[in-house]
Amino acid sequence: MTLIQPVILCGGGGTRLWPRSRRDRPKPFLPLLGERTLFQQTLDRVSDRDMFAPPIVVAGAAHEPLIREQGGNELTLIVEPAARNTAPAIALAALSLPEDAIMLVCPSDHYIANDEAFISGVRQAIALAREGRLVSFGIEPTAPETGYGYIRKGAALGEGFQVDSFVEKPDAATAQQFLASGQYCWNGGIFAFAAGDFVKELGRHRPEMARGVAEAMAQAKRCGAAIYPAAEPFAAISAESVDYAVMENTDRAAVVSADMGWSDIGNWDALHTVRPCDEQGNHTRGKVELRECSRVMVESDGPRVSVVGLEDVVVVIDGDDVLVTSRAHAQSVGKLAGAVQQ
Amino acid sequence: MTLIQPVILCGGGGTRLWPRSRRDRPKPFLPLLGERTLFQQTLDRVSDRDMFAPPIVVAGAAHEPLIREQGGNELTLIVEPAARNTAPAIALAALSLPEDAIMLVCPSDHYIANDEAFISGVRQAIALAREGRLVSFGIEPTAPETGYGYIRKGAALGEGFQVDSFVEKPDAATAQQFLASGQYCWNGGIFAFAAGDFVKELGRHRPEMARGVAEAMAQAKRCGAAIYPAAEPFAAISAESVDYAVMENTDRAAVVSADMGWSDIGNWDALHTVRPCDEQGNHTRGKVELRECSRVMVESDGPRVSVVGLEDVVVVIDGDDVLVTSRAHAQSVGKLAGAVQQ
Repeated sequence: MTLIQPVILCGGGGTRLWPRSRRDRPKPFLPLLGERTLFQQTLDRVSDRDMFAPPIVVAGAAHEPLIREQGGNELTLIVEPAARNTAPAIALAALSLPEDAIMLVCPSDHYIANDEAFISGVRQAIALAREGRLVSFGIEPTAPETGYGYIRKGAALGEGFQVDSFVEKPDAATAQQFLASGQYCWNGGIFAFAAGDFVKELGRHRPEMARGVAEAMAQAKRCGAAIYPAAEPFAAISAESVDYAVMENTDRAAVVSADMGWSDIGNWDALHTVRPCDEQGNHTRGKVELRECSRVMVESDGPRVSVVGLEDVVVVIDGDDVLVTSRAHAQSVGKLAGAVQQ
Repeated sequence: MTLIQPVILCGGGGTRLWPRSRRDRPKPFLPLLGERTLFQQTLDRVSDRDMFAPPIVVAGAAHEPLIREQGGNELTLIVEPAARNTAPAIALAALSLPEDAIMLVCPSDHYIANDEAFISGVRQAIALAREGRLVSFGIEPTAPETGYGYIRKGAALGEGFQVDSFVEKPDAATAQQFLASGQYCWNGGIFAFAAGDFVKELGRHRPEMARGVAEAMAQAKRCGAAIYPAAEPFAAISAESVDYAVMENTDRAAVVSADMGWSDIGNWDALHTVRPCDEQGNHTRGKVELRECSRVMVESDGPRVSVVGLEDVVVVIDGDDVLVTSRAHAQSVGKLAGAVQQ
């Protein structure tokens, strides 16, 4: 049986995890949980060489040194000439592969607690991909999240489901209905499909994008294990996510449902939720003194931080920046980061 | 008319204003309000040389350089050989003066917003002191504070009152009664009396302390404008406040009542209360970014501090220390400071 081809996407800044996540050292390359970075943990999950081929990583040129440093020598790097969201990034990888290669597309900035459940989901998805399906990983929802896209499951299909519909981030009441109905799962941003099927569907629904990517790859320069697609045709492409460009349009969409302790670690509150905490719900890193605190998360890369009498607060010290926010306002940090990093 | 003799006391650490206030740079020597330090503001209040003699400052040896730097050359410094609270400190100054010198004893770590009201209170107190009274400055209470001692006013006496009683820090219900009754004022820690009267009353109620201080002053060394009382007899004295040792025992106690915008700046919350704030009740110093914040106080001596979505929180950056607390827990900072400065 041919190996599965992991394709790891390293776009995205993670501004809501500022000041730890910064332009030159974004979220995938930080050891936010444990000692390995999220990027390294993503590689670790597809490191079984009896099942997976050495990975392809798609990333911007700025992060090539971080990827080489953290990713080792085994991977193939495709350098995006410009940031154009996930659909073009995945297409670059697809065009570098044989048509029958089964791709497993993984973001590099998510957390998955249960590796076995992940592998089990991969097996289900791959089976459907081999039958010509474009498969999304659905995550069984555990809370009425309003920050995620949802997928409504349709009729059973192998070990998964047909996709009834993709749903935008819902409001709180709608999210509650979705959770109660049992028919929805979160869109985990992980996909499986044959390279040729993806290229075909992209050509059908986004023909200009498909042409632009094909041109960029036709003129690509190769240097060792790195591929540098041509800048000009790629830059002319419109940025679009794989969900919008392909998954919501194709009639070959399927979804497998996985319960694997997934989090997109979208902000400090989400990170707090998946980190180990003491009995008061506190998590600390670095020199931290807590007095009469509950559900606080404090991390410092240097100065001693003393927190007295607070609840549900996040404190992060990173170099010359100090962030203090509430868990409820964690989502607003991205806007601030955008403003102060100007 | 002879000049009033200011006596400025520079004891007390101000641990509840940690990390800004530290052992080697305590509260009186910090510019907590405006550009002048609390010590300098205390000197400024008694700087009218038509009314006040050049001040005597009583302080520990550790703070002599700070006092020289901030206090100029005009003052006389009495160096306490050991910290023994206010009664012995005041006695040192009293024994360095003629018996009929009228002393105005001022802490160096309080804030007074209204200088005119202060001077008016001084005139009232001095008039009583000239008649042989030991006069406390009472502060008209503006809130049911549980952190202050209270004085219950008795019969009218000149422009002041006899003292009915000194009252320990009350509980919240009692403080509320005190405020409602109109018969109580806060004990402001400012005193006026003739040097000889103070020495006499100390000898009556604390004869050992009086003997110890007299001995220390008899063996004192003088060097320029500094007086160094002898260490051995002074160290043998028990530490006691002037309230306990003298004011609560003497039958010559009087109180004048002043409404002068006084605060002991006992903790970060008290400091926040007397600092100028924006419309949301926020006060910042240094590089600070606020988003959706109310009633927060943030000060940094270096790093940029970004605060998002918090209320009633205090953030202080001082060198390698970061403090984050709530206004309600500001009082607990002293304990923490004691622990972390070990």
